[in-house]
Amino acid sequence: MLYQELLEIINDRERVSINETVLEQHSKGLTYHTGKLPDVVVFPTTEEEVVEVVKYAAANKIPIVPFGAGSSLEGHVIPLKGGISLDFTLMNKVVSVHPEDFLVKVQPGVTRKQLNLHLKKHGLFFPVDPGADATIGGMAATNASGTSAVAYGTMKRNVLGLRAVLANGDLVSTGGETIKSSAGYNLTELFVGSEGTLGVFTEITLKLSGIPEETIAAKAYFTDVVAAGSAAEMVLQSGVRIGKIELVDPKTIEAVNHYKGTSYQERPTLFLEYSGSKEEVDNGITFIEQLMEEAGCLEFEYERDSLKRAQLWDARHSAAIAVVSIRPNQLLVSTDVCVPISELAKAISYSREVIEKYRIDAALVGHVGDGNFHALFGVNPNDLEEMERFHNMNNEIVDYALQHRGTCTGEHGIGIGKMKFLEKEKASSLHIMKAIKATLDPDNILNPGKVFIRNEVEEYL
Amino acid sequence: MLYQELLEIINDRERVSINETVLEQHSKGLTYHTGKLPDVVVFPTTEEEVVEVVKYAAANKIPIVPFGAGSSLEGHVIPLKGGISLDFTLMNKVVSVHPEDFLVKVQPGVTRKQLNLHLKKHGLFFPVDPGADATIGGMAATNASGTSAVAYGTMKRNVLGLRAVLANGDLVSTGGETIKSSAGYNLTELFVGSEGTLGVFTEITLKLSGIPEETIAAKAYFTDVVAAGSAAEMVLQSGVRIGKIELVDPKTIEAVNHYKGTSYQERPTLFLEYSGSKEEVDNGITFIEQLMEEAGCLEFEYERDSLKRAQLWDARHSAAIAVVSIRPNQLLVSTDVCVPISELAKAISYSREVIEKYRIDAALVGHVGDGNFHALFGVNPNDLEEMERFHNMNNEIVDYALQHRGTCTGEHGIGIGKMKFLEKEKASSLHIMKAIKATLDPDNILNPGKVFIRNEVEEYL
Repeated sequence: MLYQELLEIINDRERVSINETVLEQHSKGLTYHTGKLPDVVVFPTTEEEVVEVVKYAAANKIPIVPFGAGSSLEGHVIPLKGGISLDFTLMNKVVSVHPEDFLVKVQPGVTRKQLNLHLKKHGLFFPVDPGADATIGGMAATNASGTSAVAYGTMKRNVLGLRAVLANGDLVSTGGETIKSSAGYNLTELFVGSEGTLGVFTEITLKLSGIPEETIAAKAYFTDVVAAGSAAEMVLQSGVRIGKIELVDPKTIEAVNHYKGTSYQERPTLFLEYSGSKEEVDNGITFIEQLMEEAGCLEFEYERDSLKRAQLWDARHSAAIAVVSIRPNQLLVSTDVCVPISELAKAISYSREVIEKYRIDAALVGHVGDGNFHALFGVNPNDLEEMERFHNMNNEIVDYALQHRGTCTGEHGIGIGKMKFLEKEKASSLHIMKAIKATLDPDNILNPGKVFIRNEVEEYL
Repeated sequence: MLYQELLEIINDRERVSINETVLEQHSKGLTYHTGKLPDVVVFPTTEEEVVEVVKYAAANKIPIVPFGAGSSLEGHVIPLKGGISLDFTLMNKVVSVHPEDFLVKVQPGVTRKQLNLHLKKHGLFFPVDPGADATIGGMAATNASGTSAVAYGTMKRNVLGLRAVLANGDLVSTGGETIKSSAGYNLTELFVGSEGTLGVFTEITLKLSGIPEETIAAKAYFTDVVAAGSAAEMVLQSGVRIGKIELVDPKTIEAVNHYKGTSYQERPTLFLEYSGSKEEVDNGITFIEQLMEEAGCLEFEYERDSLKRAQLWDARHSAAIAVVSIRPNQLLVSTDVCVPISELAKAISYSREVIEKYRIDAALVGHVGDGNFHALFGVNPNDLEEMERFHNMNNEIVDYALQHRGTCTGEHGIGIGKMKFLEKEKASSLHIMKAIKATLDPDNILNPGKVFIRNEVEEYL
């Protein structure tokens, strides 16, 4: 019935699927959260098709869950209430590039690596880089960031406009193509980070950056991760324009060396990057080296070669996958707190204690320039005792962050994994978020069950 | 009655006023829009008082219009429906500075100059600088910017969190103290730019920047403003990290020389600034000088002395006041379109033609690094023929911007002056803004009559 009716809309058997493998692929993200099959997966190729599918879903109160690369870490893409998984893989066109305006318009299924390959000939790039080769649609939906946020900001700062289909099938466009505007409410920022609960994106206008003339990377080794965290604080507080500053602990490096065949020293390390003109880079990296020495760095190694540098960041981006691949049949869990920079070293120190207390074999990595860090490890979700230890640990790390001016999620979003923490963190304003959700999606068809814990009586199902 | 009841809440005759001069001062902003007296002006000193006043207003459906420095340019502070003008002059405390986190918390009545004076001892500053010495509350409400936006962004990017009183008197806090977060909807950005229509701010958390080691300013002269606009395009497209890049035309300089007693050359000029370490500045300004020469600059003058530099930017910030002061009894009007950078020179050229066609004696200035420029002039609002010429001119300049991927307001906001243009520019998404407004302020007591044109039947009055 559902399948047949969607087939009438899409009119292509290849793009409406109830194949079990396909349903299974759309039942979960990358992590430990229990999956659930959608009733059907639809692969739209045009904005018109998205509108038609959403209108159909609205008329029949069928849940719609947007799906990109499936690399979400908090269960965002799980069709908790069944319904339609709307897969944007085929809407992966770069719509138009405006190099002279540092702008690009893309369909939501374009991935960040695909986009940067496309932009290279213009001397431009899109800086936001979560570990996975996520889609721009998914990245916008979770307000993703990554190693470049310290220099270029998160998705929120780099999305200038959106086209989105609302829960009733209305197609709206927000924002625009200018670098600034004070024309009405900032709806673009409202949709960015809304995790598919307010609208389904069909086109995204992104701000681009010029590829710097020169870039240099470096590794700074420390006796322990807390010392490395303190050094990151010093760098930030110096005001130097750092390009990237990433904490990796020996466990992470061990996992990456194993997974990627690299041979990085398995020591507490900061991976650093500095960009600019040749002179700026020479001066900048020397200044950073001095700072590192003052902060007790044991050794400072340059990575001048561009291939080696790419390898370094590829290694960093692979950390999560590498960590989870160590033991077979493990699923990833990752904490994601973020604190003000002056709280960072203490928060890392506290987290290490908690991790040890719960005997969890976690690797510690962090976008420490933003005060954001993750404990990464593999779990067997069927091992209830292990899961309980993980949840206890996560609770304590989040509680610490909330008590120290922090947030429960720096970049992964709420999904289903952080709903109870959001209730604590945003106790005073959550009702505004819920009111906006209820106004824009009164039947709760857009990604239901995410972001907000709802009372059963509130649910339409 | 209203006065008596508010006096019971505030309990201080000095801070509840129906004095005619005070009412008159709160009847309008800086510009040509027809004023209207509030019924009463209240000067709260605490958040609790704000909550109590709003609760009282909510219970009695009395309009509330937040008032800061009164420097708004689009009539935001005019109490169109009477009611309470809520003046934040006395809530002007810097609540706490966290220099190590580059953060400050302020009450909404703090002005930008007051804040920067306070921050200087920490080596920090708040970069957003509209011309007037506006309050941080007002700047957040209109998503203000100014000469530094090209380097540091607008208010949206520099406000990390807010405390706000909703239309029902609920006190909420949004955002936080971390540099990034993906915890729920981006409510801070929703409130920033909402022009007092969604909530009344009581505290604002701002991101600060380090005062650069070295700063240099320069003036580049051109044959005409279009050539200067083209040069600005080149600078932006080169990707160089320009600190400020401001277009001023001979009329502006003439007015400023007269008003400030300066003696700048009355030629089409770009005022420029570059900051960084000493080496960066030397290299950066040399590169910019070369770009300017390639773009046909007639002469390039450095302004190395910090006093002279301050004078230069003070002159630029005084442009609007200077222009309007030329003729007695004139009120300011200012256009405020913003276009993508590749459209800038053409838009300036078109605007000059329109200005001449309507025989308007306008000065042209612009934050051209953002594609944002203003035609400034004085009008006599009682001269209907002159007002008609202004409105025709403004209509044509805005229409051109909207047809060329631009926005009707780069930084001044909608207020009452841009409502009809907002309807055009955001035709597809205006109903979302209205729905949010209706959800959060169902009785329309917060700054009624602003941002949205409402049908009379929709109004509660």
